[in-house]
Amino acid sequence: MTDSNGEYARLLAENERYTETFDRSALTAAPLSGLAIVACMDARLDVGETLGLRTGDAHVIRNAGGLVTDDVIRSLIVSQQLLGTSEIIVIQHTGCGLHDIDEAALREQVAASAGVTAEDVALEFGGFSDLAESVRTQVAILREHQLLRRVPVHGLVFDVRTGRLHEVA
Amino acid sequence: MTDSNGEYARLLAENERYTETFDRSALTAAPLSGLAIVACMDARLDVGETLGLRTGDAHVIRNAGGLVTDDVIRSLIVSQQLLGTSEIIVIQHTGCGLHDIDEAALREQVAASAGVTAEDVALEFGGFSDLAESVRTQVAILREHQLLRRVPVHGLVFDVRTGRLHEVA
Repeated sequence: MTDSNGEYARLLAENERYTETFDRSALTAAPLSGLAIVACMDARLDVGETLGLRTGDAHVIRNAGGLVTDDVIRSLIVSQQLLGTSEIIVIQHTGCGLHDIDEAALREQVAASAGVTAEDVALEFGGFSDLAESVRTQVAILREHQLLRRVPVHGLVFDVRTGRLHEVA
Repeated sequence: MTDSNGEYARLLAENERYTETFDRSALTAAPLSGLAIVACMDARLDVGETLGLRTGDAHVIRNAGGLVTDDVIRSLIVSQQLLGTSEIIVIQHTGCGLHDIDEAALREQVAASAGVTAEDVALEFGGFSDLAESVRTQVAILREHQLLRRVPVHGLVFDVRTGRLHEVA
């Protein structure tokens, strides 16, 4: 293992404290609320707190942007078919790192950092220009996907300045 | 929108309460701790609580299993290159829905549910048979990936019965 910044050791100590009051041992893998949430990985978005969720309530799927990728579809199929969730909430947010990014410039940056050519960075980062429209696009994909069940799908924008969720789909 | 089960309305009311005490408006998109966490979507794993993280501390990337997929690599590149994270923690857990699944049977189930043939379900769900070994595999991918920075990568197993994190890589 390479050197850590000390934060890691502190987190393991925090976990030790967490176990002292942990009382969720009766929960099963099936989420109590029947919810699956797809959200951005952003550090300012605490999915549980902003929705008042408790441990055991919901599946939480997160990636850069809160975009519906193939991996999110895989996760949602597992969520619905193996663990019975029956409703989906998509959450993107203001001030997202992917808002209006220059895909080509980021590809160049990654290439320079990795010591490869930009052509070697063969991926799309998922940048978008209209936040509400992006949420509606993700919701539409979920509502129409052939392998997902026909369940309610909601689309929300989280405002990182106020903590408020705004419904856009 | 199709019918919801009432839980959704309750969550929006919870968010209204959340905004009343929300005081994170000074945070930027860059995680304060420099951490990116890759974890399973499981409802029993509260990533923030089990590590004592606060809002703004870390990127949280989650999918079925806590597996390092192409989408996780995309998210980590964005996390490292655009938002400066410099350490990764992978968390899988006991009692995972993907532990020892029968991929072919799940494919049949999804096909029957969707009204298509099993051949139309062209995806791998990511089942695994050895939990600690799976975590070590994800960590190894991250430590060696050409497009990721050489940062500390830790691998943990979360015990859903005790809330305890066990270091396995």
